[in-house]
Amino acid sequence: MSNELSYPKTSANKVNRFNNRAHYDTTTIHNIINTTSVLHVSFLTPSNPKDPTSPQLPTILPMIGQMGSFTYPSSDESEALDCYLHGYVSSRLMNLSRNSTATQKGIPVCIAATKVDGLVLSLTPNSHSYNYRSAILHGTATLVEDVEEKIYAMRLITESVLRGRWLGTRVPPNEAELSSTSVLRVAVSSASAKIRAGGPSDDRKDIEREEVTGRVWTGVVPVWEMMGCPVPAGDGVGGEAPGYIVEYVEGRNKREKGHAEEAVGKAYGS
Amino acid sequence: MSNELSYPKTSANKVNRFNNRAHYDTTTIHNIINTTSVLHVSFLTPSNPKDPTSPQLPTILPMIGQMGSFTYPSSDESEALDCYLHGYVSSRLMNLSRNSTATQKGIPVCIAATKVDGLVLSLTPNSHSYNYRSAILHGTATLVEDVEEKIYAMRLITESVLRGRWLGTRVPPNEAELSSTSVLRVAVSSASAKIRAGGPSDDRKDIEREEVTGRVWTGVVPVWEMMGCPVPAGDGVGGEAPGYIVEYVEGRNKREKGHAEEAVGKAYGS
Repeated sequence: MSNELSYPKTSANKVNRFNNRAHYDTTTIHNIINTTSVLHVSFLTPSNPKDPTSPQLPTILPMIGQMGSFTYPSSDESEALDCYLHGYVSSRLMNLSRNSTATQKGIPVCIAATKVDGLVLSLTPNSHSYNYRSAILHGTATLVEDVEEKIYAMRLITESVLRGRWLGTRVPPNEAELSSTSVLRVAVSSASAKIRAGGPSDDRKDIEREEVTGRVWTGVVPVWEMMGCPVPAGDGVGGEAPGYIVEYVEGRNKREKGHAEEAVGKAYGS
Repeated sequence: MSNELSYPKTSANKVNRFNNRAHYDTTTIHNIINTTSVLHVSFLTPSNPKDPTSPQLPTILPMIGQMGSFTYPSSDESEALDCYLHGYVSSRLMNLSRNSTATQKGIPVCIAATKVDGLVLSLTPNSHSYNYRSAILHGTATLVEDVEEKIYAMRLITESVLRGRWLGTRVPPNEAELSSTSVLRVAVSSASAKIRAGGPSDDRKDIEREEVTGRVWTGVVPVWEMMGCPVPAGDGVGGEAPGYIVEYVEGRNKREKGHAEEAVGKAYGS
């Protein structure tokens, strides 16, 4: 659609390899981030922690996060959004952010979300692939200090893990809980997504060899993240999980499985 | 076990938060890497690609990888291993590695593998958690130039995606395939894992409030990566998938689901 928002292509985010798989529109990128259980967040740390001038090394933390806008909370995935990340005050990233927030600069981060949709089994190992959707954000992280914004982000992230859960628990967080939880807001400077869908793609030289095509099975094994039956805590006094949990699990499984199966029949960046 | 190999604890890998969840033994760390479909690999790139002296920014690439030893190919997960990563000659990471391999130095990378085993639903949003297994490797990546080692790594990685697949396809790779595929070998300098298993863990102040425990359902939703029925390519001339594929898919699903369900009953770093 011509009226869709897109991230600008720059040297930081431009996809070079298989650029027919590349996407820059906000809806595609934000949806991959929002439906991925764990985001991988990369940042730099000094190789000698006692010497901030020592050479920088890359580090990764797995975190939970979600795209959102505190200023315009009703924004959908097509709009300009920040990435909110949930963490702990004692972690290295949060400490780095706190120090840098004091100087108003924030710290550079890269955020990756990857969903595997299938194993693509072709005639030769080299042409094997995954069906997948991946998104990469580059941006600057700062600590959220405003209490209202922090609660907004905690609710956003809790609801992303299980819709309906925020009001299904004891809320709002008390002061001790608010101060022991840190939230990072990442202002996104560039972003891109890559999507591969469809069946195997082989070289003509192999497709034309009957002794190869007659022997090697080719096709796709769909892959998705599955949620099982909710198990009540402790001695099971809680009993069966309430409807909003059962419905969420069933709905999510149906969507995730459906996506993996639909991807098989598409020819999209393959 | 006292005779297990462990990575040394250094400032680069020591887990500070929830250190009862931390593991440094090779078996635990290598197994998480080896059973994760997609690894996230972080490295540094100059913020201005045309100026190598510009400030470095973190970047992440999703890649496929596996622990292995070309020198001692029969080594198991408990032993000292390198991490082999599969990629494309044209990608930025490979180019950086090629340039740095020329100077014999390699480039610093961080590799992360994360498996979500369950949603842990407790009384308050703050005490919510995932059951998970995550591993982080720090090390130095260099391009594999030896043809035998490259084929060793390609076979190792193909077999990790689907056991039996290497001999199930047209092998060995020809010269064009070998030169269009790049393999990175990461010498691991430090590593750690974090594992969380078990049910919800709440503060006494909430557990003692009947108006909270009576209203809020707590428990665990198991989560695992599921593989569906293999779908034959194209017009389906390939017919049903051969036994080694069906068995692999069934065995893997059983293991992954079993792990998620067993994790619920453990009290391990919770």
